[in-house]
Amino acid sequence: MQPLPSKLLEEAVDEMASLPGVGRKTALRLVLHLLRREPEAVRQFSASFVKLKEEIQYCSRCFNLSDTALCNICSDSSRDASLLCVVEDVRDVMAIENTGQYRGYFHVLGGIISPMQGIGPADIEIESLVERVSAGQINEVIFALSATMEGDTTNFYLYRRLRDFPLKMSTLARGVAVGDELEYADEITLGRSILHRTPFDLNPSR
Amino acid sequence: MQPLPSKLLEEAVDEMASLPGVGRKTALRLVLHLLRREPEAVRQFSASFVKLKEEIQYCSRCFNLSDTALCNICSDSSRDASLLCVVEDVRDVMAIENTGQYRGYFHVLGGIISPMQGIGPADIEIESLVERVSAGQINEVIFALSATMEGDTTNFYLYRRLRDFPLKMSTLARGVAVGDELEYADEITLGRSILHRTPFDLNPSR
Repeated sequence: MQPLPSKLLEEAVDEMASLPGVGRKTALRLVLHLLRREPEAVRQFSASFVKLKEEIQYCSRCFNLSDTALCNICSDSSRDASLLCVVEDVRDVMAIENTGQYRGYFHVLGGIISPMQGIGPADIEIESLVERVSAGQINEVIFALSATMEGDTTNFYLYRRLRDFPLKMSTLARGVAVGDELEYADEITLGRSILHRTPFDLNPSR
Repeated sequence: MQPLPSKLLEEAVDEMASLPGVGRKTALRLVLHLLRREPEAVRQFSASFVKLKEEIQYCSRCFNLSDTALCNICSDSSRDASLLCVVEDVRDVMAIENTGQYRGYFHVLGGIISPMQGIGPADIEIESLVERVSAGQINEVIFALSATMEGDTTNFYLYRRLRDFPLKMSTLARGVAVGDELEYADEITLGRSILHRTPFDLNPSR
């Protein structure tokens, strides 16, 4: 792209384009859109991110984002305290909550082990997970991490840290997505879904 | 999407999702990405937009964005002062500059007439255009606006405002894009490109 006619514009576009998945053309479009707003609206836009960064709290138990010391889910004593689901971030908590199929508690790692990005076990909430497990109330830990190399690495590390506790450890089922046609499933997924086939179910979409 | 677990997060996601083409899922992904940065980096991100809004100048002649009272293009006296190209915003100036085919000056309207969005002739830089034209140095005005209803409306309005001056007025050629296959061209474009066919050219891609 050609150099922009203004250094101030250049800086704003650079910042916008630093967001993941936002190219310079899109960044310019978004910045020009902001520039057409009232000054007060631009200040409010910008302040929301600074305020979030400065004032956000993490739940002291599960490390999910929260406005309070204990998040909504951890405050709900009607949940099953024997089940703990380990996830990467708040989006995964929301996705699993959306299914309506899970009534245990969560543990939010706040990231995933990624040697490529310099994120090691000490950078995410693994010690706090071991502490929670060693308190003894938990019977099963579900590793609900992405089906990527980083997810598998983290799964394996967690398994090694937790294997001496009297626990059941499980991961999400891998298989053909509900609604997917077989011919479009990739071969690794399809292979696993044959290996880990499940007993016939009259009501399979539940 | 489920309600977010934090009001601060909600506010930041709402602001991010107010940008055109950014949905709530994308907004959440972008905001969580920001949240993982250092506080100083978030402040710098946010400050860039406020600074742009507060300190940006518009070129006093062509109304393009500029850090100086007269933009780079208007300061370049080697250009052809008899040609004026009317565009909507800075992106169009950059696109036309990129072609290397134009050596005149620009006039940036800063918007386009759009009754649907409540933008009338008085909201954009039309009076200043009429003033520039009435100074008498300009022989041809090129309307380089989008090929949309709003663009056509603006073209027509400009035509009526400028028709009493001794001027040539032109618009960008409409036709099949270079590299396009005929069967994928829409019928209006193809129809116009037959009506406005050009003499055979041995070097058509220039």
